[in-house]
Amino acid sequence: MVETPNELRKDYILDRWAIMAVERAKRPTDFHTERVDVQVQKECPFCPDNEAMTPPATLVYLQKDGEILKDRDTNGSRRKDWLVRCFPNLYPALRATVQEAASPDKFLLRRGAFGFHEIVVESPNHREHPGIARLDQLRLAFEAQLDLLKRFYCDKRVKYVQIFRNHGREAGASLSHTHTQIMALPLVPRLIMDEVKSAEHYFKDRGQCAFCKIIEEEKEGPRLIFESASFFAFAPWASIHPFEFWILPKRHESSLLEIHDSEKKDFVKTLRVSLGALRKLLDDPPYNYGFHIAPNSSQEYNGYHWHLEVYPKLATWAGFELSSGMYINTASPEMAAVTLHEYVRLEVKEIEV
Amino acid sequence: MVETPNELRKDYILDRWAIMAVERAKRPTDFHTERVDVQVQKECPFCPDNEAMTPPATLVYLQKDGEILKDRDTNGSRRKDWLVRCFPNLYPALRATVQEAASPDKFLLRRGAFGFHEIVVESPNHREHPGIARLDQLRLAFEAQLDLLKRFYCDKRVKYVQIFRNHGREAGASLSHTHTQIMALPLVPRLIMDEVKSAEHYFKDRGQCAFCKIIEEEKEGPRLIFESASFFAFAPWASIHPFEFWILPKRHESSLLEIHDSEKKDFVKTLRVSLGALRKLLDDPPYNYGFHIAPNSSQEYNGYHWHLEVYPKLATWAGFELSSGMYINTASPEMAAVTLHEYVRLEVKEIEV
Repeated sequence: MVETPNELRKDYILDRWAIMAVERAKRPTDFHTERVDVQVQKECPFCPDNEAMTPPATLVYLQKDGEILKDRDTNGSRRKDWLVRCFPNLYPALRATVQEAASPDKFLLRRGAFGFHEIVVESPNHREHPGIARLDQLRLAFEAQLDLLKRFYCDKRVKYVQIFRNHGREAGASLSHTHTQIMALPLVPRLIMDEVKSAEHYFKDRGQCAFCKIIEEEKEGPRLIFESASFFAFAPWASIHPFEFWILPKRHESSLLEIHDSEKKDFVKTLRVSLGALRKLLDDPPYNYGFHIAPNSSQEYNGYHWHLEVYPKLATWAGFELSSGMYINTASPEMAAVTLHEYVRLEVKEIEV
Repeated sequence: MVETPNELRKDYILDRWAIMAVERAKRPTDFHTERVDVQVQKECPFCPDNEAMTPPATLVYLQKDGEILKDRDTNGSRRKDWLVRCFPNLYPALRATVQEAASPDKFLLRRGAFGFHEIVVESPNHREHPGIARLDQLRLAFEAQLDLLKRFYCDKRVKYVQIFRNHGREAGASLSHTHTQIMALPLVPRLIMDEVKSAEHYFKDRGQCAFCKIIEEEKEGPRLIFESASFFAFAPWASIHPFEFWILPKRHESSLLEIHDSEKKDFVKTLRVSLGALRKLLDDPPYNYGFHIAPNSSQEYNGYHWHLEVYPKLATWAGFELSSGMYINTASPEMAAVTLHEYVRLEVKEIEV
């Protein structure tokens, strides 16, 4: 067993440090954890024929004569035979009808929880998770996310849209049917604002996008996991989760809405093979992912560059992490990348059959 | 069931927002969770007579003729009959012997993981957790933490000392014997630096300590849990964890090392009854706590005010929280405070018997 000394690593642009505590040289199998299955409800509210268990769809994708049609539920009826189905969360954290709330005083600040909170059911097939999904189906799910993003960004009260996924009970999923969640927020959340500000600062300083610089650093290095025509998947230098990886578009695009049609197929492929590799390597571990995109504003965010961050849930953030905002990671990104890379090669072969 | 609309709340000083998603008016019993017991090892390495299973103690408290003596292990032998025992973590995240590490380039920053990582075993009694501990014993444990803090702050390479506790397996505790951990860090961690900067900013702006202002706001309000002669325990306005509470000294003290002898007894009492109340209310839930103290520097942090933050582990931070740095809390701090307050009254009676 080779002992590597622990080290501290700083995130590319955030003032955030991770302790790489890799001294004990864990192998990937050390990260296999006991799984608690998501409780299987008798009836899955997201499965076909159970549409009445959820609110009316604001968007459905249907197939007719080989073409994809878009529609929505109207007059209390529910569309059947959908390929993707989007509807408001039955227990939304945010509501469009919420009024602005006055703060008790200047020190205790409060706002109404205005916003939208929707679900994208990504397939009629309960278990068609992105790591095993058909590429065509995953493409439809991604298109639906973009449609909702576009819709919410037309509302000037919406400052940011968070698109995210919880997979597995330990990662906060309460239903196991493949789905993403979309929250349209009345403010730009702290982590995104920190990234945007740091990236703008870097851009002003160096005349280059910090994320394009990340690509320069990672595209041939020991943390690369997969390269498609338009995307890189890699384990970031200062990963704060074991087996964390990011997917970045090669082309400089601040907003996800700038994505080209030609890139969409590539994004879906990159997502499919990297999540497929994670699934096979670690026996379908729980994970979360979130898109990081430019805020909704008339201001242009030239220094920002959208991307996706995937966080496998293989460790517990405890007193140290929660009190300090520093993180201990027991898997080096180099180890994560080299092992994921092996599995990605197998996944690529699989989808190319 | 009264429906309260959801709202967004900003932390007193940090630019951090929480969504209070209390619409469904959960009761405290809804937060009871299935517990996974911390694996009981045949031999607890922290129990008396097993001292050889851990590194030599850097500090032990012993009792002789009714007096408390301080000592340490020397020459490979281990002191017995200790009341509190402190020693280096067998698997430290940081080491005093680590050399500075060069960064690969100016973009990928790295540092050696220099520091100290020690354990304070707070009692010879395996289960004497702070929520049920004898006050005298808890006082000794606190004194030992202060001794280590003082020792580490004498080392100018140490910029911050994080004192924290993990209680319960879901909160990251791997051993159930009552203990705290102390990490002496070569930098001021992000969250503390954010607090310090925000507090300094507030101080310059208003000529008042932001935390003294917090006390003004909370000392008589609906979020107060307990008031002792020198401390307040309260649920913070923008709690990011269900049943989160903070303990603040009434007197303005930036560093924990400024604490008066007369205040120590009060701190221990406040900790004992508030953690005791949490234990009784929620059936010994997992939790983390951490001290927030002024950094180790020749600079004076007049605008800072040390305190303790307690985070019960009753919810999972999932894709939304991890991607945004915003938090959804399903327990309002007002509900948390009123229910904890009831139990604190019982705890106070118990210790006064």
